[in-house]
Amino acid sequence: MRNLLMRVSYDGTDYNGFQTQPGGHTIQDYLEDAIHRLSGEQLKIIASGRTDAGVHARAQVFNFYTASPIPLERWCMALNTWLPEDIVVSDAMEVPMEFHSRHAAKRKTYRYTINANQHPDLFNRRYQIHHYGQLDIPAMEQGLRHLIGTYDYTTFASRKSTKSSHVRTIFDAWFERDTSMCRPGTRDQGVIHTYLSGNGFLQHMVRIIMGTLIEVGEGKRHPDDMKIILEAKNRAAAGPTAMGKGLMLWEVEYDITGNENPLQEF
Amino acid sequence: MRNLLMRVSYDGTDYNGFQTQPGGHTIQDYLEDAIHRLSGEQLKIIASGRTDAGVHARAQVFNFYTASPIPLERWCMALNTWLPEDIVVSDAMEVPMEFHSRHAAKRKTYRYTINANQHPDLFNRRYQIHHYGQLDIPAMEQGLRHLIGTYDYTTFASRKSTKSSHVRTIFDAWFERDTSMCRPGTRDQGVIHTYLSGNGFLQHMVRIIMGTLIEVGEGKRHPDDMKIILEAKNRAAAGPTAMGKGLMLWEVEYDITGNENPLQEF
Repeated sequence: MRNLLMRVSYDGTDYNGFQTQPGGHTIQDYLEDAIHRLSGEQLKIIASGRTDAGVHARAQVFNFYTASPIPLERWCMALNTWLPEDIVVSDAMEVPMEFHSRHAAKRKTYRYTINANQHPDLFNRRYQIHHYGQLDIPAMEQGLRHLIGTYDYTTFASRKSTKSSHVRTIFDAWFERDTSMCRPGTRDQGVIHTYLSGNGFLQHMVRIIMGTLIEVGEGKRHPDDMKIILEAKNRAAAGPTAMGKGLMLWEVEYDITGNENPLQEF
Repeated sequence: MRNLLMRVSYDGTDYNGFQTQPGGHTIQDYLEDAIHRLSGEQLKIIASGRTDAGVHARAQVFNFYTASPIPLERWCMALNTWLPEDIVVSDAMEVPMEFHSRHAAKRKTYRYTINANQHPDLFNRRYQIHHYGQLDIPAMEQGLRHLIGTYDYTTFASRKSTKSSHVRTIFDAWFERDTSMCRPGTRDQGVIHTYLSGNGFLQHMVRIIMGTLIEVGEGKRHPDDMKIILEAKNRAAAGPTAMGKGLMLWEVEYDITGNENPLQEF
């Protein structure tokens, strides 16, 4: 028996989220089905966490136990032949038997993308929201800084959250602005990628943070209100849940080797 | 009556090409339908040229005559509200009545994209082909150079071409290599964009050139064979027609103002 760790990317547009559920058609279902076709084993994979319907992953991570003799280096290509073209497994490694993708995750990074140009970018339409009208981006950056640290993020959690604690740590949060599509002489503001990196995120947390930050960008809220909103520990204090299509699980980091590098990327 | 010139982008994946045809569901049909809904006019647009089924456009150009009083600056946003999300009109200008998008086009540039990394890039899967195995990229560059100039490109035209002359001029052709997705320690070769810029292209011309160049990259043909293949003036001398999904109409240039800049971009 071996414990295999794999990295998978997916376009979540046409799926009911990552995790198996009664309605079917989830990323997990397709991965487990591909493993079954390949190795004959009916098993359950363990992921670093779930993603909602319509949310994407550049690098989701999962592990599973297999008795298959298939060599490590052949797994990715072989699984991809059984997977639909919007799910791609790109890396595989063998890890200690006790390794658990969710428990061992030290750091997760999400990216949320807002196109603030006048016209939508149709070639990336599945992976970004389009925002009409001007956004005060420095105000959004100022608002976002209030969320970095260790806090009870109840304000930014779905009311359906069943977690016993809503305390999490956001290590860092930053903006990247891509102005390559901006046309001179227009009010195009570029494509704004917001990265949030923390030890874990509650259900809808990134999307509710983004929905609230967009209201800051629109001038409906003051950037320093983010502190008050956070301290309210009340979902009603925040803005709407931004659309899932703008969200992408960007990276999951582990301390696999136990060496000096505490957040070695898998 | 005014003559309006517009730029349109589209994802050709789900359409039967640009130009109206009996089966319907073409880009032209949707554009004319949006104009009809907006202005009440049933008219025919004139495009810089057609694109095949599955081929995309970053910047296709078309013009039409309208009696509508809708101000110039309102056309794009208004048309986009009637267009599906994979067709976006992004610029509009008024041009002299005698201006004709096809006749006046001085230069067209196409881009063809090959992903030569080990794994497909699922987020760009509609806009690139994925090539398994190593490609000799310097050999492809050497082969491509033989096609720059003014030649009879019969070898690289669809047998269905009905043009009276197959003489065209390719002004320039070049590669751009994006290695941002390459993973260290792998045989990933990056994403290879091939640009071809000329005064006009025959049916399937870019795709047949690319299908032949890929054979050069695979070592099946010598780069200098491209010269012999071109001179054969025979479709059978060339390689296969590369898939339409990798092709994008990148730019169409006009000399609208007649000023010193002979290829002013619209």
